Formats: sequence, C-alpha cells, structure tokens
Amino acid sequence: MCELLGMSANVPTDIRFSFAGLARRGGATGPHADGWGIAFYEGRGCRAFHDPEPSARSDLARLLRAYPIASRIVVAHVRRANRGRVSTENTHPFVRELWGRPWTFAHNGQLKGVKRLALGRFRPIGTTDSEHAFCWLLGELDARFSALPASSRLDAALPPLFGRLAELGVFNALLGDGRTLWAHCGKRLSVITRRAPFGRATLLDEDLEVDFAAETGPDDVVSVVATRPLTRDETWRELVPGETLALRDGEIRDLGRGGVVLRR
Amino acid sequence: MCELLGMSANVPTDIRFSFAGLARRGGATGPHADGWGIAFYEGRGCRAFHDPEPSARSDLARLLRAYPIASRIVVAHVRRANRGRVSTENTHPFVRELWGRPWTFAHNGQLKGVKRLALGRFRPIGTTDSEHAFCWLLGELDARFSALPASSRLDAALPPLFGRLAELGVFNALLGDGRTLWAHCGKRLSVITRRAPFGRATLLDEDLEVDFAAETGPDDVVSVVATRPLTRDETWRELVPGETLALRDGEIRDLGRGGVVLRR
Repeated sequence: MCELLGMSANVPTDIRFSFAGLARRGGATGPHADGWGIAFYEGRGCRAFHDPEPSARSDLARLLRAYPIASRIVVAHVRRANRGRVSTENTHPFVRELWGRPWTFAHNGQLKGVKRLALGRFRPIGTTDSEHAFCWLLGELDARFSALPASSRLDAALPPLFGRLAELGVFNALLGDGRTLWAHCGKRLSVITRRAPFGRATLLDEDLEVDFAAETGPDDVVSVVATRPLTRDETWRELVPGETLALRDGEIRDLGRGGVVLRR
Repeated sequence: MCELLGMSANVPTDIRFSFAGLARRGGATGPHADGWGIAFYEGRGCRAFHDPEPSARSDLARLLRAYPIASRIVVAHVRRANRGRVSTENTHPFVRELWGRPWTFAHNGQLKGVKRLALGRFRPIGTTDSEHAFCWLLGELDARFSALPASSRLDAALPPLFGRLAELGVFNALLGDGRTLWAHCGKRLSVITRRAPFGRATLLDEDLEVDFAAETGPDDVVSVVATRPLTRDETWRELVPGETLALRDGEIRDLGRGGVVLRR
C-alpha cells in the first residue's frame, strides 16, 4: 500500500501542513519508504516534484515543507513499491498532457492483468501497473472526446473507467486536470472539507498543530482526501469502496458508487 | 534572450557547478529574471524542476545548488520573457512523453508565426512560441516514426525540422530524449567537452572554482553546451548559426549546418 493525498480549494492554498503528515509516513511513521512525489497546479500549469528517496529523509521533502507553494489542486503520493522497482520513472504522481492540460495521477493498490488493457497514444515510461492504468485512462478519454469537454462530461465518463480498473484489484486513485480532482475509493480513502468557522487541528503523525483560522479567509473552502485521516481532532469521512468524488473549488460532488451503476 | 544549459555525460555526473553559473544569470549577473527550470534524466525517467521566480533569488535554485543529482543528460533554462507571461506553464524546459520516453525541450529566441504551424497530438499548455515549436517538433516525429527509432534515424530527422523552425526567427534550442541531447545553434551557442586529464575551472558569473580531477573518474567524458561560456579559464567552441549537434555519452557528433543541407 502507498499513501495518497489530494487537495482541492477555491483559493490558492498552502498544502504544507498536510504534506508534513504525509511525508512522515514515508519511512518514519509508515513503511512507505520507496519514494514520493507531489504535483501542484498553478494557473494552467503544473509543477511536480519527485524523489525516489524516502520522504521522511528527503532533502527535497524538507525544502517543500518550508516552501509556500499555493495551489488550488494538489496530488501527492508516498510509495511502498510492490510492482516496479524504486526509480524516478516509477515515482507517482505521473503527468501527461491531454488537450493542452497537464493531467496528474497517483494510485495505491495493485491491478492484476492491467497491462493487458490496450493503450492508445499514451505510453508508460516506467514499469508500474499504476502508470499503465493512467495511460489507459487517458487513452480512453482521448478516444471519447476530441477536445477538452465540460467537467460535467468528465464526471460522467470517469466513474465507469475507474470501475473497470477497480475490477482488476485495489484501485484507490487521484486524478487531476487542473480544474477537478477526482478521487476513487477502491478500499480505503477518507475526506474532509474545511470551511468557516475554521478551527485548529493536530497531525496524527507528528506533533504539529495548525490554526486554520489564522491561515485562511472566511470564504475559503478546502477539501483534503487521504488514504487515512491526517489529523487526530477532526472528523474525516471514510468513503465506501466503489465511491467516486469530484472535487472542484473545494466542494465535493459525490458521483456515486461509480463503476457498475453508471456504466451504460 | 534566455540562457540555455545542457549536459551530456557517459556516467551520471553532477551538474551543480555549471548550474550555479547559470542560476546567477537569472536576475543577478544577467537579466533573465522571469523564471527558470532544469530537467535531469535518471534511468528511463526524468525529473524536472520549474520555478517562475528568478533563479538568483529562488529557494528552489538554492536547494538544487546543494542537491547532488547525478544525471547523464540535463536540460536547463533561465528565462527572460518576450512571448507569454511569467507563469509556471510558460517556464522551460517543457516535457512530453513520446514512445514511452520523456522528451524535454528548452529554447531561446523568438519564432515569428510559429503558431501557424499545424500541430499533431501534442498541445501547448502555456502560451509561448517555444512550447508551440516543441509540440510541433514532436508531432512531426510522431508522424514519421510509429515507435522509438534508432538514435541515428533521429539524428537524420531532426536537423531539417530544426531548420524549418530557424527560418521563423532565432532558434537556439536543446532537445533531449534520455539517450541523446540535440543542440541547435540559431545564433549563439557554445560547447565544451571535458575529459582526462581534467583541470580546474572558474565560473565567469561567480567566484566559484572547481577541480574536475577531484570530481571525476579517468574515463569520464562530459560535454556542456550553453548560450555563453560558463567558465573563464577553459576554451569553449562557439557553434556557427545553423549547426546542429547530437551529444551522446558525453561525445559530440556534428550533424552539420542542418536544416537546409540535410532537407530532402
């Protein structure tokens, strides 16, 4: 198992508090010592940082914990390798351009036989089942739409595709296109939405407390999705297996227990 | 004008010395204060760091100057914006996957009317003429080859494509696929190959000296290409306009004054 972290917000928001908790799980409070990565959307662009070193001991992770990147959509991952060796090309999140947008993807779980799914024009650089699944997903979208469709059309198209992948094993995944963050729960994923009145929260993995009221404006809405809750004094909601969320501007839209029901 | 820096080596090599000189040009010794980026190939993968902040004042650049990433191919760029606003999506080097390889591209110069060149499946995320040129280049390669061809076939295919871009204005560019670094001189580009016996060198832009003999093995071959020479006590060769080089394993192959001559 790897650990996932995603964020959607209605204003550019600092992810450092949550990332601090996630990074600890990469070799300190968790066994996910086989690299980590984080992608931040900024405007139409996206910056991704990858490191095959354990995040708990990574110089780059230490820098990012001190580096105030404000973003409205973030996708992060710490890895415990089960398929594919520890290397840069196997480090999530994966990034590809489709329709002039940077798409990002991170996954935890294992997908048996995923490499038998025929690919379109996107090809894996590394050897993970996750990157193959991502390339397949984008190929399927590319075959359905000739240009960037409305987000609502992607909300309809993605759950059946996620469902097909989930049939192959465990598929907890985050997918972002810069407007929307989609989260699919195959087995384990939790979510929280923070909005006014903001309170305080303490990380589970480190003795670090934050007062969100001091960090946010009254109209800010921020949702965070993670494999396991990151804080000990807030109420996270556990998703049910098969559930897909679309997070836009910090608000959560539940797309239902996707795959099977929505497939037509 | 922006500044380019590329490296090719036969063993994973530390770029920090050269990057220190380049980074100074981003807002300190040069006017290229509109962001910077660097891409390192590692195995089949590639890590890219982008920052819209001036490199001379960037926390990320400071980290990278202290961060020993060893790579056989590096593409770096500091930007002075002339087309496209200062933003993450307009920051070079640009990265795209083609045939399961990460391709990287950085450019300096201006290309008049480049956006009239019809694109294939690669689409710009930002608004620079450089990214449009890159997407066009990859689309042309994609149309010619259905899978990754031998490097020698790319050596033959690329100079005429570079030549076509060079007809549109100033086209100094670096293009990498993880095996080869291609360098095209439209107006200004210099190159140096370092091999045993290694000597000492001092940066032009900063009072920093390195003893390559202490940093390298006797069989190492490292070539560096840059807009302007980075050191004051070595002999760099200035390329002539129109010249294209292929750098592999640190060795330089001159592909001639490409565009016109090699076009068939």
